[in-house]
Amino acid sequence: MKKFVNDPNVVVDEMVEGYVMANKNVRALQEARVVARQDAPVKGKVGIVTGGGSGHKPAFIGYVGKGMCDAVAVGEIFTSPPAHAFYHAFKAADGGRGVACLYGNYAGDVMNVDMAVDMAEDDGIAVKQVIANDDVPSAPKGKEADRRGVAGEILMWKIGGAKAEKGGTLEEVTASAQKAINNTRSMGVGLSPCIIPAVGKPNFTLGENEMEVGIGHHGEPGIEKMDIRPADEVAQMMMDIVLPDLPMQSGDELCLLISGLGSTPLMELYILYRKVGKILEDKNISVYRSYVGDYFTSLEMAGVTVTLMKLDAELKELLDMPADAVHFKQL
Amino acid sequence: MKKFVNDPNVVVDEMVEGYVMANKNVRALQEARVVARQDAPVKGKVGIVTGGGSGHKPAFIGYVGKGMCDAVAVGEIFTSPPAHAFYHAFKAADGGRGVACLYGNYAGDVMNVDMAVDMAEDDGIAVKQVIANDDVPSAPKGKEADRRGVAGEILMWKIGGAKAEKGGTLEEVTASAQKAINNTRSMGVGLSPCIIPAVGKPNFTLGENEMEVGIGHHGEPGIEKMDIRPADEVAQMMMDIVLPDLPMQSGDELCLLISGLGSTPLMELYILYRKVGKILEDKNISVYRSYVGDYFTSLEMAGVTVTLMKLDAELKELLDMPADAVHFKQL
Repeated sequence: MKKFVNDPNVVVDEMVEGYVMANKNVRALQEARVVARQDAPVKGKVGIVTGGGSGHKPAFIGYVGKGMCDAVAVGEIFTSPPAHAFYHAFKAADGGRGVACLYGNYAGDVMNVDMAVDMAEDDGIAVKQVIANDDVPSAPKGKEADRRGVAGEILMWKIGGAKAEKGGTLEEVTASAQKAINNTRSMGVGLSPCIIPAVGKPNFTLGENEMEVGIGHHGEPGIEKMDIRPADEVAQMMMDIVLPDLPMQSGDELCLLISGLGSTPLMELYILYRKVGKILEDKNISVYRSYVGDYFTSLEMAGVTVTLMKLDAELKELLDMPADAVHFKQL
Repeated sequence: MKKFVNDPNVVVDEMVEGYVMANKNVRALQEARVVARQDAPVKGKVGIVTGGGSGHKPAFIGYVGKGMCDAVAVGEIFTSPPAHAFYHAFKAADGGRGVACLYGNYAGDVMNVDMAVDMAEDDGIAVKQVIANDDVPSAPKGKEADRRGVAGEILMWKIGGAKAEKGGTLEEVTASAQKAINNTRSMGVGLSPCIIPAVGKPNFTLGENEMEVGIGHHGEPGIEKMDIRPADEVAQMMMDIVLPDLPMQSGDELCLLISGLGSTPLMELYILYRKVGKILEDKNISVYRSYVGDYFTSLEMAGVTVTLMKLDAELKELLDMPADAVHFKQL
């Protein structure tokens, strides 16, 4: 294992320490492993909280900032943060109008958020949850509630965060975030595993010429392993799975997010974008806004996720608002 | 070779095609492989041009945008763009006040820029050059002019681009960019090679437990190969090489840029930042602004570069100005 680490058992603590040293607009709480906006809680604004396992940088702590998240509960690598971290994140984010907890559908996170919500309510803090389930291959149509949350979470934070900045109530913020994720579909293709520092060996194996279609963000098995194909065929395959799940019509507009999983060069993401864009053009579906880069990774996995969010007037307006998180800036 | 590519010989063309599809604020020229701001040339503003081989994303095309570069000449992977690409970049960028060509010290780039400058001057376009040479291990002290340009180029574009936006003359813009690079020192450590798609095999080899200290952005050999060490020791070693080259005193302020080379997780960059920040704190040198992420990569190489820019009042003011390039946004 060749990595820039010291003790593999404290990588998350050292990362958080480096992160808050590097970025003066954020702070780490003393009470629990939570990163918050320096100015949180923002009085009179609904607080936005998320959280999850580490190893997905810039998710989650990279999205703390104006227009996105107020506080983030930080877990060990690929492991849910404990309930008390979510609880302290809620306290740090509550500016008196309640907290929207916008996170991904993983059993540990759901359990810990539920407990934290109870704790917060005992303190008189209102918390409402939206659970992202955008990963199409993780459960069949009709069982959408079983699906995992993947890169679509970023769009949910963007929409919910913007609605909160605009002064929305807790109900309005969670309604907009829920609409965002209801309109969002993702899927991933993996080319290589990653190594969790404290484990020291790859988290799964793939043949020399093999790719995993529908892979999850922690290396969860996908739909099928198959030989690697040219980029255009991979893009076509992904769109053939994602697009029918959220039917779009000629004239529709969407947000397109193509994220690398860690070690896939940006060049390859744009080669995939080229084909995805053409597939959409052929259907007369227009890309209103796009994001291409390492937005939600799995340490150094090679691979990609494609995320589509169908837009309406409200989502477009919220998507266009500025954001100033460390790793998500929009003017 | 597992990559998302179609024909390995046209990866750069397909990348550029995807890039301009994804980003409506930029365009590709017809005359040569150049990416330019959609609104370039900006009348009355000094044009900022750079260019170089591909495979360093987001460098170079990711830095096209307001407050950064106006036009970028795009080469094949790790290969200089031809003179006519730089020439057309100059034409696309010239808003009537001349063009500052800010690029890295590589023989092919220097030769092609020189030829392009002659061509542009025949057209009556004034071009002045600043050549980045921030890579300390690439030549000894006293031979600074032989050093390569690496991630410090980004800070040179930021400073030069901001000076141009402020209305600086060509002389003022190049003077500020030159000051930026004069005040900047970098070095890299590599943990793994990368694969150029058209070659299909790694560009160099490293032992299973080996790192290369002082590696270049194309896998150029560094100072020494040695066994991998804990992150804190790597950070200390880098600072022991970089800091004495540009002596700083207690009370000085700097900009700190830690860039991954491609497949190194952001987590590891922040673990390195933690130690670099402490080393600077101990010397009472303060980090005025920092950037941590994949700013200048070598396809999927694992590794890191650390870049320090010593600041004065002018550099701080220019560093703080907003920027709106696709992969470099600052509010």
